[in-house]
Amino acid sequence: MEHLESEFCVVGGGYAGLSAARSLTKAGRTVAVLEARDRVGGRVWTEHLDDGTEVDLGGTWIGAGHDRLYALAKELGVGTYPTYDEGASVIVGEDGKVHRFEGAIPFTGVGLFSLAGMGLGFTEMEKMAKQVPIEAPWEAEHAKEWDAHSVASWVNAGLNVPNATARRMVQLLWGGFFTSDTSEVSLLHALCFLHANVSIEFLESTKGGDLQDQVQGGMQTIAIRMAAELDDALHLESPVRAIGQDAQGVTVRADNITVRARRVIVALPPTLTGQLRYDPMLPVDRMLLNQRVPNGAIMRAIAVYEEPFWRADGLSGRTIALNSPVSYSIDQSPESGRPGMLSSYIAGPAARRFGRLDAAERRRTFLDALEARFGPKAAKPVHYIEADWSKEEWNQGAMIGHYPPGVLTEFGPTLRAPVGRIHWASSEMPTRWHGHIEGAILAGERAAEEAYQAG
Amino acid sequence: MEHLESEFCVVGGGYAGLSAARSLTKAGRTVAVLEARDRVGGRVWTEHLDDGTEVDLGGTWIGAGHDRLYALAKELGVGTYPTYDEGASVIVGEDGKVHRFEGAIPFTGVGLFSLAGMGLGFTEMEKMAKQVPIEAPWEAEHAKEWDAHSVASWVNAGLNVPNATARRMVQLLWGGFFTSDTSEVSLLHALCFLHANVSIEFLESTKGGDLQDQVQGGMQTIAIRMAAELDDALHLESPVRAIGQDAQGVTVRADNITVRARRVIVALPPTLTGQLRYDPMLPVDRMLLNQRVPNGAIMRAIAVYEEPFWRADGLSGRTIALNSPVSYSIDQSPESGRPGMLSSYIAGPAARRFGRLDAAERRRTFLDALEARFGPKAAKPVHYIEADWSKEEWNQGAMIGHYPPGVLTEFGPTLRAPVGRIHWASSEMPTRWHGHIEGAILAGERAAEEAYQAG
Repeated sequence: MEHLESEFCVVGGGYAGLSAARSLTKAGRTVAVLEARDRVGGRVWTEHLDDGTEVDLGGTWIGAGHDRLYALAKELGVGTYPTYDEGASVIVGEDGKVHRFEGAIPFTGVGLFSLAGMGLGFTEMEKMAKQVPIEAPWEAEHAKEWDAHSVASWVNAGLNVPNATARRMVQLLWGGFFTSDTSEVSLLHALCFLHANVSIEFLESTKGGDLQDQVQGGMQTIAIRMAAELDDALHLESPVRAIGQDAQGVTVRADNITVRARRVIVALPPTLTGQLRYDPMLPVDRMLLNQRVPNGAIMRAIAVYEEPFWRADGLSGRTIALNSPVSYSIDQSPESGRPGMLSSYIAGPAARRFGRLDAAERRRTFLDALEARFGPKAAKPVHYIEADWSKEEWNQGAMIGHYPPGVLTEFGPTLRAPVGRIHWASSEMPTRWHGHIEGAILAGERAAEEAYQAG
Repeated sequence: MEHLESEFCVVGGGYAGLSAARSLTKAGRTVAVLEARDRVGGRVWTEHLDDGTEVDLGGTWIGAGHDRLYALAKELGVGTYPTYDEGASVIVGEDGKVHRFEGAIPFTGVGLFSLAGMGLGFTEMEKMAKQVPIEAPWEAEHAKEWDAHSVASWVNAGLNVPNATARRMVQLLWGGFFTSDTSEVSLLHALCFLHANVSIEFLESTKGGDLQDQVQGGMQTIAIRMAAELDDALHLESPVRAIGQDAQGVTVRADNITVRARRVIVALPPTLTGQLRYDPMLPVDRMLLNQRVPNGAIMRAIAVYEEPFWRADGLSGRTIALNSPVSYSIDQSPESGRPGMLSSYIAGPAARRFGRLDAAERRRTFLDALEARFGPKAAKPVHYIEADWSKEEWNQGAMIGHYPPGVLTEFGPTLRAPVGRIHWASSEMPTRWHGHIEGAILAGERAAEEAYQAG
């Protein structure tokens, strides 16, 4: 058991934790970062093909306005490139038929009546979202009313979304963002997320939107360079189990190392935060909050082809499907376009179901879906790589924690409040760009500033 | 570190765990029970005054039909006695005025219009509840629709409960059962709980109802006698941290002891179940379920008087209040009626708020409320005893875990399913009498039978 002293300790080497540590180091403070895994990046993870080609399996995109992430890439000498977005996208309708469409949102394939319904639903949600303060959603005028609803109960109520196919489309989208059934997610959280991330169209857009750019070498490159700066202040394979605090400081116990510091920043997803032991116990509201921000589930498959053959067919690689577990796909090829890569997703309840199938069935499910949308070439990738984030011990679900009904209004103000010498940071914090890497960075930098000011 | 072997291991010495251990022992099996606290009983806990008078601070009542608990008391030679219920009850209306009423449910003090609204709401809920299978609420015809609603979103929708005071009354009741804001609790869970526990009137009734009898010597007496039978198979102050399993058996690691057994029964509330480490990891659905059954909060104060003076005033000791944080009180005197005891409660959001006040303010809040309902004598108890269950490390909230919207339909079938050699028992299991001691016993006995049959 190694013992060490540092001015600050950071628990978690994802983007929130690394950003916090970097801020404190730049301010001349000493920091010890404890990360459970044998790698940094948290929910960002880049694998490599034998030829060295990067394959992002976690957070992949930088969106327009993700200023801190762009700045960080630049400072660390990491390049970015536009996500491929020429050609038409594809929607698989409820009839199973494939339709092409242009732009971020399908204006075909679902019938005009459904389309109008979907438009009404989204327009209403965006109008409501603008009334939700991004950093304090519990202060919205209608906070209590909206937080009592799940996304599903609101979508299905009265004429909010006036027809069945439109309801399915709206819920497909929200189920994708939160990787959980929409009955589990507070309407207020959805609205806050929407306000924090501009609009539905923004979230679904490449150029000028959420999916604007990819990172040369893969998104983890930025985390790895931040880790390199930290040098031996970073301790991998050091899962933290307990945090004690007293009048002088904190004692952070990992399996292999104990850090004594003035203050600690816990930069974990909320559900993992709740699995640490605290001495003394956390205040009641914070303890109960930690019980209330569950994760969803997602499976992602990346099919690698010698070339991005769909581009020659006038297709962008983007697909949305109403009648398939594989609800979404996108072109994730490296900048050179060689090899071609399609990333596709099964989210929420379907991800849990498909996660129980054997590897051959899962592969068939993904590739059958791609074949239906892109033709027979899609059935024969040269590589097929899968990530099931729910099976990762240090995620315990994916991608982000959601707030069930009632939680933001009852416990929201507790989210950012330090508990004595313990500060909190994660992408789940209600902040601009929350649920994204940019949100994690902002949360980490805020926690660092807070800890620094408190001394 | 002590190592021992046993045929079965039980984690948790509450009523579920003790019942499971007792069943296995009776069937001739060896069992090791690991309990984190220095006492048995879990959410049942009896303190004593200096003169030896028992004071129940946790589960207190046996309800009509709680057959296993009555049988257990009899087998173990523990007597019961009727809860005092003569005289009128009191409702404090929204105007702050005190009104007397007879029976379980107030038919005065809130206005006829409100009363009718409340009656309509409860009638509709009971009608719906009968359609919810007690052990498989996710199989109800309208399960998906009802599970998408919180209790609050349903109560506030349309004309389900047609006026504001009635809505407050209905939510006061559900907020009391689940000790959480009603926006957090799935309507389907409320309906399942209602079906499992007969009716609203039953839940609020003494003779023939949920509050029928108390236990001589206090409810913990039964747990203590079960513990005595277990003798040195019971290990107190042994908080379990990790459970490993392999083809031959399980390894259960507490701070001070490791048990190797064929099978283990985890008899903890779900949120504590989620804080254990499992090797291998739990299946995704079970892991995600453990993130989704949060606790509420409750504060309970017992005021002890030389005699139950309210009885002479024609009062039963039962009160309900619409305009006070102290929403409920009941006569909890021992069988002799000497001393007199009033137990009163602050539940849910108010309990969290009042838990942050200093001891003098909390005491004043409770006693002012009692004085308003019972007169000046109530302000001067000879003893005043408080329990804040949320501050107990081995509860982490109170009284029972609730299912937020979407959880029962998405994860319900996982609740009882053993994971290899790990079996599950707690009062939160959807079973007859769930949320009660009787439900915990039934869950413990079911898990024991399951483990026994599996060998």
